[in-house]
Amino acid sequence: MRNRQQLQCRPLSGSSGGGLHYRPIYACLLLPAATLSATAQSTIPILAAKESYVSESALAMVPMPTHATLGNGRFLFDKGFDMVFVGYTEPRLERARLRFLETFSRKTGMRHWPHETGLPQIVVATKAASAPVQQVGEDESYQLEVTPAKILLSAANPLGALRGLQTILQLIHTTAEGFVIPSMTIEDKPRFPWRGLMIDTGRHFMTPEVIRQTLDGMETVKLNVLHWHLTDDQGYRVESKVFPRLQGKGSDDLFYTQEEIRRIIDYARDRGIRVMPEFEMPSHASSWFVGYPELGDSTGPYRMKRELGQPWDRPRIAAEDSSMDPTRESTYAFLDRFVGEMSTLFPDSYFHIGGDAEDALIEWKTNPRMKQYMAAHGMKETGDLLIYFNRRVQKLIAMHGKSMMGWDEVLQSDTPKSVAIQSWRGLDSLAKAAGSGHLAVLSWGYYLDLNEPASRHYLVDPLDQAAGALLETERANILGGEAAMWSEYVTAETIGGRLWPRAAAVAERLWSPRNVNDAYSMYRRLDTTAQNLTYSGVPYLAVRQSDYARLMGASLPAAFMVLASVVEPPRGYPRGGNRAYDVYTPLNRLSDIVPAESDLGRDFRQTAQRIAARKGSREDLRRSRAWMIDWRDNDAVLQPSLRKSALTMELVPLSQNLNRVALIGLAALDLLENRKLAPPGWKSEQLETLKALSAQHAELTLAIIPGVEALLSAIQT
Amino acid sequence: MRNRQQLQCRPLSGSSGGGLHYRPIYACLLLPAATLSATAQSTIPILAAKESYVSESALAMVPMPTHATLGNGRFLFDKGFDMVFVGYTEPRLERARLRFLETFSRKTGMRHWPHETGLPQIVVATKAASAPVQQVGEDESYQLEVTPAKILLSAANPLGALRGLQTILQLIHTTAEGFVIPSMTIEDKPRFPWRGLMIDTGRHFMTPEVIRQTLDGMETVKLNVLHWHLTDDQGYRVESKVFPRLQGKGSDDLFYTQEEIRRIIDYARDRGIRVMPEFEMPSHASSWFVGYPELGDSTGPYRMKRELGQPWDRPRIAAEDSSMDPTRESTYAFLDRFVGEMSTLFPDSYFHIGGDAEDALIEWKTNPRMKQYMAAHGMKETGDLLIYFNRRVQKLIAMHGKSMMGWDEVLQSDTPKSVAIQSWRGLDSLAKAAGSGHLAVLSWGYYLDLNEPASRHYLVDPLDQAAGALLETERANILGGEAAMWSEYVTAETIGGRLWPRAAAVAERLWSPRNVNDAYSMYRRLDTTAQNLTYSGVPYLAVRQSDYARLMGASLPAAFMVLASVVEPPRGYPRGGNRAYDVYTPLNRLSDIVPAESDLGRDFRQTAQRIAARKGSREDLRRSRAWMIDWRDNDAVLQPSLRKSALTMELVPLSQNLNRVALIGLAALDLLENRKLAPPGWKSEQLETLKALSAQHAELTLAIIPGVEALLSAIQT
Repeated sequence: MRNRQQLQCRPLSGSSGGGLHYRPIYACLLLPAATLSATAQSTIPILAAKESYVSESALAMVPMPTHATLGNGRFLFDKGFDMVFVGYTEPRLERARLRFLETFSRKTGMRHWPHETGLPQIVVATKAASAPVQQVGEDESYQLEVTPAKILLSAANPLGALRGLQTILQLIHTTAEGFVIPSMTIEDKPRFPWRGLMIDTGRHFMTPEVIRQTLDGMETVKLNVLHWHLTDDQGYRVESKVFPRLQGKGSDDLFYTQEEIRRIIDYARDRGIRVMPEFEMPSHASSWFVGYPELGDSTGPYRMKRELGQPWDRPRIAAEDSSMDPTRESTYAFLDRFVGEMSTLFPDSYFHIGGDAEDALIEWKTNPRMKQYMAAHGMKETGDLLIYFNRRVQKLIAMHGKSMMGWDEVLQSDTPKSVAIQSWRGLDSLAKAAGSGHLAVLSWGYYLDLNEPASRHYLVDPLDQAAGALLETERANILGGEAAMWSEYVTAETIGGRLWPRAAAVAERLWSPRNVNDAYSMYRRLDTTAQNLTYSGVPYLAVRQSDYARLMGASLPAAFMVLASVVEPPRGYPRGGNRAYDVYTPLNRLSDIVPAESDLGRDFRQTAQRIAARKGSREDLRRSRAWMIDWRDNDAVLQPSLRKSALTMELVPLSQNLNRVALIGLAALDLLENRKLAPPGWKSEQLETLKALSAQHAELTLAIIPGVEALLSAIQT
Repeated sequence: MRNRQQLQCRPLSGSSGGGLHYRPIYACLLLPAATLSATAQSTIPILAAKESYVSESALAMVPMPTHATLGNGRFLFDKGFDMVFVGYTEPRLERARLRFLETFSRKTGMRHWPHETGLPQIVVATKAASAPVQQVGEDESYQLEVTPAKILLSAANPLGALRGLQTILQLIHTTAEGFVIPSMTIEDKPRFPWRGLMIDTGRHFMTPEVIRQTLDGMETVKLNVLHWHLTDDQGYRVESKVFPRLQGKGSDDLFYTQEEIRRIIDYARDRGIRVMPEFEMPSHASSWFVGYPELGDSTGPYRMKRELGQPWDRPRIAAEDSSMDPTRESTYAFLDRFVGEMSTLFPDSYFHIGGDAEDALIEWKTNPRMKQYMAAHGMKETGDLLIYFNRRVQKLIAMHGKSMMGWDEVLQSDTPKSVAIQSWRGLDSLAKAAGSGHLAVLSWGYYLDLNEPASRHYLVDPLDQAAGALLETERANILGGEAAMWSEYVTAETIGGRLWPRAAAVAERLWSPRNVNDAYSMYRRLDTTAQNLTYSGVPYLAVRQSDYARLMGASLPAAFMVLASVVEPPRGYPRGGNRAYDVYTPLNRLSDIVPAESDLGRDFRQTAQRIAARKGSREDLRRSRAWMIDWRDNDAVLQPSLRKSALTMELVPLSQNLNRVALIGLAALDLLENRKLAPPGWKSEQLETLKALSAQHAELTLAIIPGVEALLSAIQT
């Protein structure tokens, strides 16, 4: 259940005790981004400076550094530069140099070709090696001194050097003089040591190429843990040489070979990123049983689960919703050998077992064998059986030299302190784990597959609310957080467009000082980051463009993009409720492709809110009207083309509604501009209509409705 | 000089004897595309049918097939399909199947996952193997039968199967029902057996990845020869194990390892593409002499040539403009071992030596050693020395089992008939080679680096003009043609945007029947092909997008794209004349990025021509006015941003001129619409102004000027 976050729609117990007002209802209410700015206090010196335009454009990076001070002058790249690495060195740094130069080249269109002498220098000074296998909490700090003649990047170890190189790349921007970085000094280090991204490759397989692109993106924004969710009911994804029927029967031939995994781990290490595997147990493991039925708790026969979406919308299917059998010694013998093999393959010190037991807790209640076992061992309820299973697994993971990690569910009263907890339940749950001596990581609030705006994720802080009541030493157990991307509704093709750029907002939350929390600034910098991600080799913008083109053939009309720019996929999980999804369902519709958040919708809403508050500028009025006229007229142009393609036919009502919403908005704007009263009943009638027009079509909603509602709200009757 | 085609600006001798009126002045005059349609006679049955809309959209492919007949119904892909290969099989066909499914997946967003029975089938029936090393003239024909239940692709060998698979992929298009191919029968085979693309990797190195992407694009449009120009003054690009100082001293470390080359050759063979290497000699070889000075004809010391552009714009540099020394036996001993090594590395039966001797013919005239040698061997002029050199080289190439190929220059009176000729000089030269018994290939008219419109290349036919006077048997010596891309002004990054989609127009010329020559239809189908290339893995559209974004930072305003869409890089070679280019010069300006041909410029010109001819529709008038209003108003919005980036500062006058041209156009349109006379002198004054506004800025011209000129021309005074 822990990938079902939106169900937490009630105020979380105890969460009203601290933090900002919107947190307790985080996942349920639509909070206008404009209200966020009230809480924003940008206290980084450089952003507080008077030359705020210069400052922000000079620091258009994500995540923002801890300290930055502007100097005089600038380092100019256009005339060429030398790049030298001094101090400790290793092949990884040489590869980092080549990667830096390649990204530099993509960003500037200039080749690094130092054919002259006396060029300005980039000097990377590294003191010593980092750990052979990257550890939690290693030093990632760096210092940067930019002057016209030299950029000096100093770091204690290669990890800091890697972080600093990304900072340099992000700081380069074009000016009337050429590509420059203004003279400045930066002191930077992460606020949290665990800054992760979880990718679900069980439900939809993600190709090694996509994993590598994801790692490229993570490096760009200084994330340092790839949490690789490798198994689920819909697929087991890792080659096992010990138990080859795991991938042989349980993957549809979509799995990573051990060689591919080793290469990906090397690729990650090159980028200063740990790779933590997750093998789900005891539930979400039915794909294992297709090849090894003796592991399962029901009688079988087992088959791969094809259904996606909400399990509570369909009857339970015993064989596919089975869990591992905790009562047989053979299960632990199997897991012992399995963990042994995987512990060698994955060098990270953490081994994530998921720990989700939703199916188990149902099956075990009725299964006679379980009941008998529980009675024989003095267990009162199925939860005791789960505790027993987890303890056995934890022991064998420890035997193989690893620390176990699991979701909230593995936290029980006597769970060994060495088990780390990943919290999907909320800040209370996180604080509880930390308070009881467990290392803990927050994922609640960072579920990117929910299609929430970046600002939502941005303002969730692991040390908010319940953590406030913890002792300093307990709070230190909170290692950071992880953005999470479950893959019911993303494929290898579309995942990039849903990860980026929102994952960067979480990355900044976990790296930058707590008081870097101006969502306006974040959004502006996210724009630049989107382009930087392209230069770093994350092609999500291009893939989206090509996916759009597919919808209607090559001749995608401009009017189509007008519609696409104002729609959003639904937040949370209503998709599975509307339509049956399984692993075969193509994810090639507009709702699969559009960004989770409509930038134009947000921009319009903010503009409309200013107008409604009588704070709108002349330009605000002009832009709003121009937008709404476009929207009003769009359907007439677009309608005939929409009907020509099966993929766009379903957008017909949405396109019609865009016209109707725009007409209401224009009428409202007329009244506001002319300071007229609305006829009696008109306003409530329009609000009713808007409500009807808010209905999903083609699993999309119109992101401009809140803006029109804001205009209506300001009309006097 | 054979990469200096535009200098052929005089009517070519004898070329007035046949063909269409514009051919003799091919490279000099701007021919409005609209006049082309007068010569267009689409006689493919399916296009001549009454349902021309259905037909063209059903056949939106490049190149068009030889014969196609529409049936009833359609093959629907949305419900899934089976794909089976019958008859002869080999691993290459299995890889083709996987590649087909991958492209299918990108094009439709649907995964091929046959999990049901009774699905419609794609059956690929191949009779027998093709040659172990692909030969010129192998059977590439295939037949395609599309019915609702089955697509049957039949071919004599894997080459035909590969061609047919691309046809299927191109034919798939979206409709209200889903992705379909209409029922049809296609009989298809190439008109010419040699359909090539020459890529210059000497001047700017092209990465193996770019070569592979180029091969992907070639497969999509059924080109079958990669002519790999591997050496030039600016770089020697192939690892030699026998002479390692070639790449060691002559490549700036930018070269292909033998392993990379073997992999690329395999990659090409998988796609039914031959790979013919070209090693330039005796001129354009100074990069060889840096490591092996004894090969050169001057005294050295030799260094890499860094200059690009037109050699006649600068003084000759002896050491860098040197050629191979034809008088030393050691030269031939070297070449013997070298050709031996490269003949093994490159399995193709052709070995291209370039044969360009422009520098040699200058040096040899004055070099005392050459003079003495000529005198001693009874040679009268340097040309004789060149004949001697070519004959020696031809013999040793033959000894190594290969046929020699060279540009026009290698054709001399007693050149062995086994030498194949590539003609850059023109159709006469081609006919002369074929008439004297040489196999010959046309490249004149197909130089993509000249930035000519696709329609120009499209209407050049190897069998036009002089070929008409040849005997049937002589004409059979004309094997086809090769598009050519010299790389003075393209890099690995930008080359895709200049190759595609125009290379597809040449591909159609060489594959499809001669009477497939409607440029309007070609342009419409090129649009679809551009998107198909993306699905085939040629990312040129995405790269261009990212290159645009770089020009002004991430926030590229819409007004910038308005400007970018109406400019064109100059045709021919004026660039090098305006500005000194060398291999270090970044190619990151707008003129490096925009398509060679402005689609909007062409569209506007055609519209304006219809208006000028009093054949303009109401919609023509509306569109022209709307465009010109956009252009008129664009500069005011764009100007401030242009000044913020060094890369766009130079566009300021161009943007201003766009406004001025639009103002003239709008005034002309007013007069025309109101059927008014222009004041005396007004028209010629405006034409003068337009002439001034046609000047290059930032190495770009405004592609809308011909359209405005057309409007002006129709005004009565």
